Amino acid sequence: MSQFWSSFVKELVPYVPGEQPKLTKLVKLNTNENPYGPSPKALAAMQAEINDNLRLYPDPNSDLLKQAVAEYYGVNTNQVFLGNGSDEVLAHVFNGLLQHDKPLLFPDISYSFYPVYCGLYGIEFEAVPLDEQFQIQPADYAKPNGGIIFPNPNAPTGCLLALDAIEQMLKASPDSVVVVDEAYIDFGGETAITLVDRYPNLLVTQTLSKSRSLAGLRVGLAVGHPDLIEALERIKNSFNSYPIDRIAIAGAAAAFTDREYFEHTCKSVIDSREHVVEQLSGLGFEVLPSAANFIFARHPQHDAAALAAKLREQGVIVRHFKQQRIAQFLRISIGTPEQNAALIEGLSAI
Amino acid sequence: MSQFWSSFVKELVPYVPGEQPKLTKLVKLNTNENPYGPSPKALAAMQAEINDNLRLYPDPNSDLLKQAVAEYYGVNTNQVFLGNGSDEVLAHVFNGLLQHDKPLLFPDISYSFYPVYCGLYGIEFEAVPLDEQFQIQPADYAKPNGGIIFPNPNAPTGCLLALDAIEQMLKASPDSVVVVDEAYIDFGGETAITLVDRYPNLLVTQTLSKSRSLAGLRVGLAVGHPDLIEALERIKNSFNSYPIDRIAIAGAAAAFTDREYFEHTCKSVIDSREHVVEQLSGLGFEVLPSAANFIFARHPQHDAAALAAKLREQGVIVRHFKQQRIAQFLRISIGTPEQNAALIEGLSAI
Repeated sequence: MSQFWSSFVKELVPYVPGEQPKLTKLVKLNTNENPYGPSPKALAAMQAEINDNLRLYPDPNSDLLKQAVAEYYGVNTNQVFLGNGSDEVLAHVFNGLLQHDKPLLFPDISYSFYPVYCGLYGIEFEAVPLDEQFQIQPADYAKPNGGIIFPNPNAPTGCLLALDAIEQMLKASPDSVVVVDEAYIDFGGETAITLVDRYPNLLVTQTLSKSRSLAGLRVGLAVGHPDLIEALERIKNSFNSYPIDRIAIAGAAAAFTDREYFEHTCKSVIDSREHVVEQLSGLGFEVLPSAANFIFARHPQHDAAALAAKLREQGVIVRHFKQQRIAQFLRISIGTPEQNAALIEGLSAI
Repeated sequence: MSQFWSSFVKELVPYVPGEQPKLTKLVKLNTNENPYGPSPKALAAMQAEINDNLRLYPDPNSDLLKQAVAEYYGVNTNQVFLGNGSDEVLAHVFNGLLQHDKPLLFPDISYSFYPVYCGLYGIEFEAVPLDEQFQIQPADYAKPNGGIIFPNPNAPTGCLLALDAIEQMLKASPDSVVVVDEAYIDFGGETAITLVDRYPNLLVTQTLSKSRSLAGLRVGLAVGHPDLIEALERIKNSFNSYPIDRIAIAGAAAAFTDREYFEHTCKSVIDSREHVVEQLSGLGFEVLPSAANFIFARHPQHDAAALAAKLREQGVIVRHFKQQRIAQFLRISIGTPEQNAALIEGLSAI
C-alpha cells in the first residue's frame, strides 16, 4: 500500500492464472491449452508479417480479422468486437455492459476471473449456486439482475448448457445483457452466436486460445447486437486504440479460414477426452460430463490436493482449486495421446 | 445509446488515432512511426517464435522482457511494468495512480489521449497552459494536484523539458505521482529513468513504437519505484493476465539488446529532422524546436488545414489538429530522405 495508489487499488484481489512453468519437460495439463499447434496457414500468415512493416501501427479496427470472424459465423462486421485475448474482451464487457444498479449474476462455480472484474469495476454480484449435479439451472437466474454471465461449457466443470436453456434465460431477463462465454464451445457444444439476431440482449464471447491453438497470440472476440458492440468499441477506443498487433491480426484471420485443420484437431481432442474419461472411470474417478478440452474429476478415496502434488512429483501438472464444493476435484486438460498416457500412468501408480 | 450500456458509456469521447490508410503508395508522415524497420535481431527473434508453442500461453509476467528492460536501464525488474503498447500502460497508470481527490494536471497542448483516459475513469483534470513559446513551465504545476502527467518531449509540439526542470516539479509535488511520458525521448532527450531511485513519486513511461520501430507489435513500459509498479501489476492482473504475446515478448527483448542498430537509426532520424527543419525554414515555416521524430510547424501565409489537404492531394499525409492555439500548425513525422523530399517538393509546389 502506498499513498500514491488510487484508493480502490488496495482492495483489489487479482486473478491467479495457472502456472506457466519454465521447465519444458513437464506434462502441462493445467491451463487448458490445445495439445496441437496452430493451423499451418496461421503460422504462414504470421511469418509473412515479420518484416519492416512492423514499424507501422496495425489497423486500429483489425478489419481483416473482423471480416474473417463475420464470414465464419455469418454475421456483419458491426456485430463483432475484438480484443487482446478474451480476458480483455471480458474486462470491457464487465465495464461497459454489466455495471448496473442490480447485481450481476453468475454461477458460484465458474471462471474465477468474474469476481475479479467485479472488484476492478465496483460491480455488485450474486453467485448463483450450481445444482447438486454441478449444472446451471436457468430458472435460478429468473430474478431481478443487472446482467448474467456464465461460461458454456462451464469452467472448471466442463458441463454444457443446451441452447434452449440459454433462450429461456434470455427471455426471462430481456432487460439485461446475458453473456455466454464460449471459450470451450468448439469441443462439443453448439454456439449461441446463431441466436444473436433474435436476442438483442445476447453477447457471445470466444477466444482463439483453445480450439484455435493460439493462446500465445492473445486474441479474443465478442459477437452480438451492434448496440452492444458499440459500447465495447467506445471503451476500447478510450483505452487502447491498437489492442491487436499486426502479426496477431494476420494469424488469427488465417486460423478462421482453415476449417479443415480446425475440425480435425477439435475431433482429436474430443476423441482423446472420451478415452481419458473411460480410463479415469476405470481407476475409480467420478468425472463430470465434459464438452470442453478438459475434464473435472474426483476420486472418492483420494484427496485432490494430495493427488495433484503426487502427479507433479511425476512431472504432470494439473489444476486444483482451493474452493468450497470443488476442493476434492482436479481439472485436467486433455493433452496428446502421449501426455494423457503419462497422466494415467501417474495416477495408476498412486 | 442503449438501455444495456453501463451509464458512463454514453458520455465517453474516445480518442481518434491518426489515419492508417490502406493505400500503401501514400507518403505517411501522420502517425510518427519510424521510417526504418525494426532491428534485424528483433525480426529474427520473432521469426523463431512462429511455431507450435504458440498453442501455449505466454509468460504472464514477461520476465524475459522485464529483464531486458531492467538491464538496459540499470534498474531492478520490480521497477519495470509492461503493457500492450504504452497506451495500455497509460490507461492503467491513470486508473491506478492518478485517481485522487485533487485534479490531475497536464499541459493544455499535449497527448490528446489524456483527457480521454480521464473520461474513462472519471478523473477530474486541469489543463495547464503552455507558455507563449509553447513550453512547459514547471512553476505552473506547483499547486495542489492529484498527479501530473506530460510527454517529454511534448506532443505534438516536440519541445523538450530538461531533467532539472523535471526535478523541480518532482520536488514541488512530493505527494503526487509525476508521470513523464517518454514516447519520443530517444530522438534527442535524456531519460528521467536515471531519477527514479531518488524520487519515489516519479513514473516514466516509454514505448517501443517509435525509436524501436515496433508500432506494429504493441509493447510499452513504465519504470518507477516498486510501490508504483505494484499498483500497476495489481490492475493488470485484475484486467488481463497475459497482455503481451509470445512473439512480442521475444521481439521486444531482442530490440533492447541491439544497441548499435538502435543508435544508428535514431541518429539517422535526428539528422533528417535537422535537414527538414532547415528546408521548411527556407520555405518560410516557423518550426518549434523539436527533440522528437516529428516537427510542429506553421506558415504565416498559409492555413494549416488547407496545406494538409493540398499535401494529401499530392500523396503526402501529415497530421492537423483542430484545436485552439495550434489550429495553424501541422505535425509532420520525419520519414526517410525520399519521403522528406516528397514533403518538401509538395510544400514547394503550393
